[in-house]
Amino acid sequence: MAKYTIGVDFGTLSARALVAEVGTGRELADATMNYPHGVMDEYLPTGERLKPDWALQHPQDYLDCLNYVIPEAMKQAGVSPEDVIGVGIDFTACTVVAVDAAGTPLCMKDEYAHNPHAWIKLWKHHAAQDEANRLNRIAEERGEEFLARYGGKISSEWMVPKIWQVLNEDPALYDAVDRFMEAGDWVVMQLTGVEARNACMAGYKAMWSKAQGYPSRDFFRALDPRLENLVEDKLSTHIYPIGAKAGEITPQGAKITGLLPGTAVAVANVDAHVSLPATGSTQAGRMLMIMGTSTCDIIVSDEEHTVPGMCGVVEDGVVQGLLGYEAGQSCVGDHFNWFVDHCVPEEYAQAAREKGQNLHVYLTEKAEKLKPGESGLIALDWWNGNRSVLVDVDLTGMMLGMTLTTKPEEMYRALIEATAYGARVIMDNFEQSGVHIGTLIACGGIAKKNPFLMQVYADVMNREIQVVRSTQAPALGSAMFGAVAAGRGKGGYDDIAEAAAEMGGVEEKQYTPIPENVAVYQKLYEEYLRLHDYFGRGANDVMKRLKAIKENQRG
Amino acid sequence: MAKYTIGVDFGTLSARALVAEVGTGRELADATMNYPHGVMDEYLPTGERLKPDWALQHPQDYLDCLNYVIPEAMKQAGVSPEDVIGVGIDFTACTVVAVDAAGTPLCMKDEYAHNPHAWIKLWKHHAAQDEANRLNRIAEERGEEFLARYGGKISSEWMVPKIWQVLNEDPALYDAVDRFMEAGDWVVMQLTGVEARNACMAGYKAMWSKAQGYPSRDFFRALDPRLENLVEDKLSTHIYPIGAKAGEITPQGAKITGLLPGTAVAVANVDAHVSLPATGSTQAGRMLMIMGTSTCDIIVSDEEHTVPGMCGVVEDGVVQGLLGYEAGQSCVGDHFNWFVDHCVPEEYAQAAREKGQNLHVYLTEKAEKLKPGESGLIALDWWNGNRSVLVDVDLTGMMLGMTLTTKPEEMYRALIEATAYGARVIMDNFEQSGVHIGTLIACGGIAKKNPFLMQVYADVMNREIQVVRSTQAPALGSAMFGAVAAGRGKGGYDDIAEAAAEMGGVEEKQYTPIPENVAVYQKLYEEYLRLHDYFGRGANDVMKRLKAIKENQRG
Repeated sequence: MAKYTIGVDFGTLSARALVAEVGTGRELADATMNYPHGVMDEYLPTGERLKPDWALQHPQDYLDCLNYVIPEAMKQAGVSPEDVIGVGIDFTACTVVAVDAAGTPLCMKDEYAHNPHAWIKLWKHHAAQDEANRLNRIAEERGEEFLARYGGKISSEWMVPKIWQVLNEDPALYDAVDRFMEAGDWVVMQLTGVEARNACMAGYKAMWSKAQGYPSRDFFRALDPRLENLVEDKLSTHIYPIGAKAGEITPQGAKITGLLPGTAVAVANVDAHVSLPATGSTQAGRMLMIMGTSTCDIIVSDEEHTVPGMCGVVEDGVVQGLLGYEAGQSCVGDHFNWFVDHCVPEEYAQAAREKGQNLHVYLTEKAEKLKPGESGLIALDWWNGNRSVLVDVDLTGMMLGMTLTTKPEEMYRALIEATAYGARVIMDNFEQSGVHIGTLIACGGIAKKNPFLMQVYADVMNREIQVVRSTQAPALGSAMFGAVAAGRGKGGYDDIAEAAAEMGGVEEKQYTPIPENVAVYQKLYEEYLRLHDYFGRGANDVMKRLKAIKENQRG
Repeated sequence: MAKYTIGVDFGTLSARALVAEVGTGRELADATMNYPHGVMDEYLPTGERLKPDWALQHPQDYLDCLNYVIPEAMKQAGVSPEDVIGVGIDFTACTVVAVDAAGTPLCMKDEYAHNPHAWIKLWKHHAAQDEANRLNRIAEERGEEFLARYGGKISSEWMVPKIWQVLNEDPALYDAVDRFMEAGDWVVMQLTGVEARNACMAGYKAMWSKAQGYPSRDFFRALDPRLENLVEDKLSTHIYPIGAKAGEITPQGAKITGLLPGTAVAVANVDAHVSLPATGSTQAGRMLMIMGTSTCDIIVSDEEHTVPGMCGVVEDGVVQGLLGYEAGQSCVGDHFNWFVDHCVPEEYAQAAREKGQNLHVYLTEKAEKLKPGESGLIALDWWNGNRSVLVDVDLTGMMLGMTLTTKPEEMYRALIEATAYGARVIMDNFEQSGVHIGTLIACGGIAKKNPFLMQVYADVMNREIQVVRSTQAPALGSAMFGAVAAGRGKGGYDDIAEAAAEMGGVEEKQYTPIPENVAVYQKLYEEYLRLHDYFGRGANDVMKRLKAIKENQRG
């Protein structure tokens, strides 16, 4: 009798449940629901206006989505709850819920509903930049070793800057918070009744490490004396490795999901990191590029190295027993969308419509006909700053080589190539730091939909690139972790490596570098690197000075 | 009884005649006609295919235009030939006619009509680049002093490279040529029967100077022994200063133009240089920017200085008795046209249509609402290379500072600003070389039509800018030279200064720098300069390397 497992992928705007068959990875059905409140970046549901750079979510949305997507996916799959052995979830991170002693988000209590700080701060809430800057300065001055694990910089998107913002702006509310939790851990707690914080989110977003734990009390006191006992008072030192079982569905969890009480639930995971097992293997020496509006890179290794400009390295953070490195490009698909929205002439829009194509497909077809280097263009892919390896949000875009005959498809291709150069900088940076990368794999919408782009990446990186078979790598990965939480005794797996081998895999087609393209791209990449270092490493900080003038002029 | 004078402006695609009143400069009427054969850059009229970079014209077109535009303008003005005292013409240069001993263009003789080299090489014929490169190398090796008068470089557009190309590619045709003439001088010869070569074209385009004459025989022999006697054999050492009378309309010229035999004709002039008197003054210390698809700068001075990167300095070349300096920007309106053609989204095109505006007006209205520096963008205005002060056709465009919220009007404004920075580099370069610029004046389509752009120029250059009153500065300037050729005795003028004072002038409105904009633009200009020097002066020759790769890939 076949057994099934369910993965739920909580993204920025929606949640998706996938029902997969244990043993084969066959994807039977999936269901998606948008969060009713989406991203709240202008007003609270109670009408209060939010300041710039805020981004909040509503906890009830997560429960309402669970309540729809799991039963709906099971219904479509024709699978009954008895045959579902486990469930895993992945979530955006760092997305922070402030709860009371009972685990109830403060925003769900009338007395706090009008207070923006009582709501869930989404990963892309960017209003704690001051706190992040101060934290980085203090950590650097103190020579804190943990900084090296994060490429030298803590992001304003992460847990401690976000908590510190609450303390600075509303100390009374801070006092009313019993615990700050990752939303992923909070959702798992709604299903299991258990607070089982996962090592991935704690490691990548809250400065925790398996070997060293959290930063010291001294450090927190140096930030603010009131933060001295933050970890003990409002976080937790009980951190579960990725692949662990958090608990089992409670009667309350069963009501929400339609699953049977007792069904195994895995600890939560980050939506990018959870995708690795979908590749079919969790062995060391693999780099997975999750390519969408931005790209997240996950590299697993059995050695710990200091890699400048990575986002973080966490033991047990991706696969138990291995070091999981994270890096990223802030803007990939977003570049192409910006270009299509702002820079494509009417004539092209009309021609695309006549051919029944969207503009991306239309431009790609034209760009594909060009040879590497034929446009004479080169760009720096920094429209949204640079995450790795420069870790600098104040860098901006650049394009060079335009003439009076430069065409839109040439600029579009230059943007694609720029993101490929950016990817190669990351790969080379890991290898130069001692982290061996044997296999390169891609997943995500762009990897599945744009063979031309993938070929450019293969040519620029001079590597074969495999593509994950599933179109829903995160949900499939989560489902695998659900089966691991259930364990072999219940028809699941003992570890994620087994699950990956049976349920994951890559497409037959892989992208192989074309030697004559590689030769030209090698030259272009050298030009990219020279510009990358000139504008990115302090030789000419024009981008920052222009940004300062811009901010000053906008007032 | 009022007297009239006629100016004929021969542009790249059409000729225009203007009838103006002597004493007031009142413009009574004008008439335009396109050249029937336009620019021939693909085929000869006889069907032969042309190579890339060729650009030819048909001499009969010039005569046919004269035959229409002068009578038509007089008819519309209600002016009879008896009241016309003089005529002046200006022409594109260097535009080369190869004639036989009778002055007949070889292309008009059946035996040569199939030979591309027998036709008129238009100024923008770019197929003599090899010859220009060799000429420059040899001149540099020999330490030829004349190079300094041309900012260190002779252009492939000029007379000697074009002649040398004929010799290299078709020595038999070269032998058949009696003389090579500027088309402007040739047209004057059709009207007067006199070959009266003008100092402006000889000086700016054929390396002639009043003090030194042409380069030495030694130099020409070093180029090619067959060129040793080029000047004596196929050019002329009789050069007339600007403002001189070439001769009078012959019966044959009267047939063509409808003017009376005996009407005074001035020596020809270059279409940019001839505009200076239209400003109302020909005094030293003035810089005139003739702003169109590209910009030509004319500066008159009473001192000779070596100015790096100018196009040329010629005594008597603009005004008799003064040094006339020329500089230029290869791409001004062309930038904005490129942007409108290639980079403006459908949504904007639709909105502009609804408002009944063209895209330039629509974008300008939006760009105008921004403050300087508010976009965070900066560009290098090199889409068509850089004429002054870098003299480098292999430079290309660059834009920097883009983010995901960058809008088309911001990029459009950045291109406008880039051309203003380019103009300031030229102005500062002259002043730093000792050429004083007291007054800044603009003319041409852009100067008349785009007050926003003019204000940006005033703010960037931190100078008041006046605008020539006439919308047809070249034709008005030519008309003035016609009145000078006639002389006071015939109701005209003794010199061009008198004509300018009476017939020229600037608009009442002038553009005055706005202090708060000046302050911001000063900072942005410093950024521009840093990038200008980095990419333009050899620190990073990426633009040239990309161009080499591009040419290689295009094969």
